[in-house]
Amino acid sequence: MPRTAETASFQFNHTMVRVRDAESSVKFYTEGLDVLLFAEKNMGNFTLYFLAFDQGQNYKDISEEGKSQALFAREGVFELTHSHGTETDVSFASHSSGNSDPGKGFGHIAFTVDDLGVKIKKRLQDGKMKHIAFIMDPDGYWIEVVANGLKQ
Amino acid sequence: MPRTAETASFQFNHTMVRVRDAESSVKFYTEGLDVLLFAEKNMGNFTLYFLAFDQGQNYKDISEEGKSQALFAREGVFELTHSHGTETDVSFASHSSGNSDPGKGFGHIAFTVDDLGVKIKKRLQDGKMKHIAFIMDPDGYWIEVVANGLKQ
Repeated sequence: MPRTAETASFQFNHTMVRVRDAESSVKFYTEGLDVLLFAEKNMGNFTLYFLAFDQGQNYKDISEEGKSQALFAREGVFELTHSHGTETDVSFASHSSGNSDPGKGFGHIAFTVDDLGVKIKKRLQDGKMKHIAFIMDPDGYWIEVVANGLKQ
Repeated sequence: MPRTAETASFQFNHTMVRVRDAESSVKFYTEGLDVLLFAEKNMGNFTLYFLAFDQGQNYKDISEEGKSQALFAREGVFELTHSHGTETDVSFASHSSGNSDPGKGFGHIAFTVDDLGVKIKKRLQDGKMKHIAFIMDPDGYWIEVVANGLKQ
């Protein structure tokens, strides 16, 4: 069905998960998966990290002023929320990935890639889904890696 | 930093959450938020529902054969997983939204819109974030609705 004029602007902008140790998580995504750390906003007790792949937006040429607008005018943004102090709080339990209690809640995020090869440390599943790998981030969140161009 | 040739294809393709009652959830997203139900895949014990806004892809003109490829060649896809039977299982506890135990796990997904007006039943937050609303889906997952073009 066609979208209405009223909803034609709608975009699925971002997904937010909380992380225990921002430094480890940001490093994992930016160095391990080559996601750009687009913006970092210190909100006082917590800091927000906005990650996104540069899909031709040429973010390096965008002013700081224009960055926030650009951030909310696209899909595929991943937001990490870090409550200050959790990274050194030894009594702080690990984050729930959503998958320790099967069948409930959050499941995973997924990246598509052209080649399920180098760079990503992967664990291919057996059986019929050989084009999919799952990796875990520092908090244990599941990341599905799907080879682009292949059918699920 | 520039993306490497190796990772230039990477996209943040989708986010998956589990739902208790697929019919209610699909209706909420397709009728309430005008997201397109792009594909529905019955996997035996569970069914996957892939939702995405049509951002000029003209999905209505794409063959069934081409749909899976199109689905994984973009960002902003939202996947619902429904384990068959949970919708009528009275002993089945509600899904965890990730926000009942503050500070842990999954937080929310977010849609950007041009106008925080009609169509979406919203609850504007007080204070400094008047351009943001949060709504809840049938499982209690939080959906942030951000007015496009405004800075966070």
